[in-house]
Amino acid sequence: VATIGVDLGGTKILAVRIERDGTASPVVKRSTPVDEGPDGVIAAIAGVVEELGLEGLEAVGVGAPGIVSPGTGRVGNAPNLPAWGESVALGPRLADAVGVPVLVENDVNAAIVGEHWSGSAKGHDDVLGVWMGTGVGGGLILDGQLRRGPRGAAGEIGHIVVQHGGRRCGCGGLGHLESYAGRAAMEVEARRRHAAGERTLLVQLAGEGRMKSGVFAKALAKGDRVAADLVDGAVAAMGIALASVVMLVDVTLVVVGGGLAEKLGDGLVGQVANATTALLPSDLGITVATAALGDDSGALGAAALAQSQFT
Amino acid sequence: VATIGVDLGGTKILAVRIERDGTASPVVKRSTPVDEGPDGVIAAIAGVVEELGLEGLEAVGVGAPGIVSPGTGRVGNAPNLPAWGESVALGPRLADAVGVPVLVENDVNAAIVGEHWSGSAKGHDDVLGVWMGTGVGGGLILDGQLRRGPRGAAGEIGHIVVQHGGRRCGCGGLGHLESYAGRAAMEVEARRRHAAGERTLLVQLAGEGRMKSGVFAKALAKGDRVAADLVDGAVAAMGIALASVVMLVDVTLVVVGGGLAEKLGDGLVGQVANATTALLPSDLGITVATAALGDDSGALGAAALAQSQFT
Repeated sequence: VATIGVDLGGTKILAVRIERDGTASPVVKRSTPVDEGPDGVIAAIAGVVEELGLEGLEAVGVGAPGIVSPGTGRVGNAPNLPAWGESVALGPRLADAVGVPVLVENDVNAAIVGEHWSGSAKGHDDVLGVWMGTGVGGGLILDGQLRRGPRGAAGEIGHIVVQHGGRRCGCGGLGHLESYAGRAAMEVEARRRHAAGERTLLVQLAGEGRMKSGVFAKALAKGDRVAADLVDGAVAAMGIALASVVMLVDVTLVVVGGGLAEKLGDGLVGQVANATTALLPSDLGITVATAALGDDSGALGAAALAQSQFT
Repeated sequence: VATIGVDLGGTKILAVRIERDGTASPVVKRSTPVDEGPDGVIAAIAGVVEELGLEGLEAVGVGAPGIVSPGTGRVGNAPNLPAWGESVALGPRLADAVGVPVLVENDVNAAIVGEHWSGSAKGHDDVLGVWMGTGVGGGLILDGQLRRGPRGAAGEIGHIVVQHGGRRCGCGGLGHLESYAGRAAMEVEARRRHAAGERTLLVQLAGEGRMKSGVFAKALAKGDRVAADLVDGAVAAMGIALASVVMLVDVTLVVVGGGLAEKLGDGLVGQVANATTALLPSDLGITVATAALGDDSGALGAAALAQSQFT
């Protein structure tokens, strides 16, 4: 079947159309009209779908931020879509607008499915995907299938505890992976240290704006001590979390993606691999790979999920 | 089919025969002739199987300690079976001896399958089983199926890190769950504190022997501070580990079994439930239940696994 996959983010909507024979259209990008609330965002998604072509279209898949309720296509708790409130029936409403069935999945789950379909995880049956972006998200492929869980919550690796009583997470918990390896938490910590008198290029490079992943890469390249320390902390936290995942579900491949992984590159991924392997018994080796599809993984994965769901 | 399930332990062999209609024989118990090595142990298992009846028997399942290589029936790395060395072809050798196909599974995996089949986890599709015994073992039921993993290592919750740089585990790692919530590690810590001058009933009650789970229960009942502190540490470590598991794979039920859980009873299980829930977001509630089948879960689960594998 021909399917369209959509990756709905807080700033951008990405979409791709995949034909019966597997050929994919170029990925199109549009701004997300966040200020217009659910109505505007759903209309924008419908517009992109129409643009890519309704002819021969049999299903649409959407990767959306937040917790997606399995089966219902409802999206709740999406911090990047502030006007959405408690829960929006994204799937049913988009299906009404475009006239084909719509599957909705968590965006990080869609991204790891994309990497499994045509990226770094292709051909691997047991994979953890970790996305180091503003926060830290994850997704699990077990026995070749996406693990959703009865509440659609599987893969929430960002909120597993890596340091008992450690740094406070954005969610309120203490010592979560995301508090050490998420860009936003690393920015908070960098600004805290700067305010406490530590000298760092990070604040200077970021200025008044957000401390983007590229800022960490630049400061690191210039030998900034605070940047190095924060990245070391992120690597150590990732090692603890990944080793626990390997012990618990026995995956053999970890794919690391997201802005921080892209900007810090293979050096970071190699350090994460070493930190993880150091905590594992010798007979439980793993491969750690960088995500291959960049921003496109979510849209591709959403299309692949729609294809497998509606055929 | 009629199947026989065997739970192979370092001190006992337990076995049960289940008929086509689901009726189960009484569970029989024999001593494990550990000193006789693999030959003696395999002969003892074959003897118990024959005793329960070869007539109409279609398959045997065995739950064995250590890492069981998926598909091959080989058992390696079993600290409770010291004379076994690197790896023993338990499945093929027992099949030769009894004349029916044999499935071998890790003993804790078999136990959680037993609880899923006819114990506390019956009717639940997404379950973590945690066995607090000498060490801490675990098993996962996901979407109603036992999660094995490509290397048969899934469920090794005892070796996930709950305290970065914490207590040294028997396996060499630092800060593993088992270092806080396993009976053997708790004994080491109790004796260390006693040697350092802390007063505790634990050492007095245990005497020269092993500090059994019942000793912790007695000392706790008498208000012993070291015992209370060690149990608090075990509960806190369990909370961290279980919350991480719920976040990662989205299970809705945790079944806690093993000697420590049996002797400390529902009080311990309630504390573990509270410690876990405190670390989870409100929309990811779980139920924590005590294992219902006691020592019989492994043999029953092994029979159930053989039944589902060979029909």
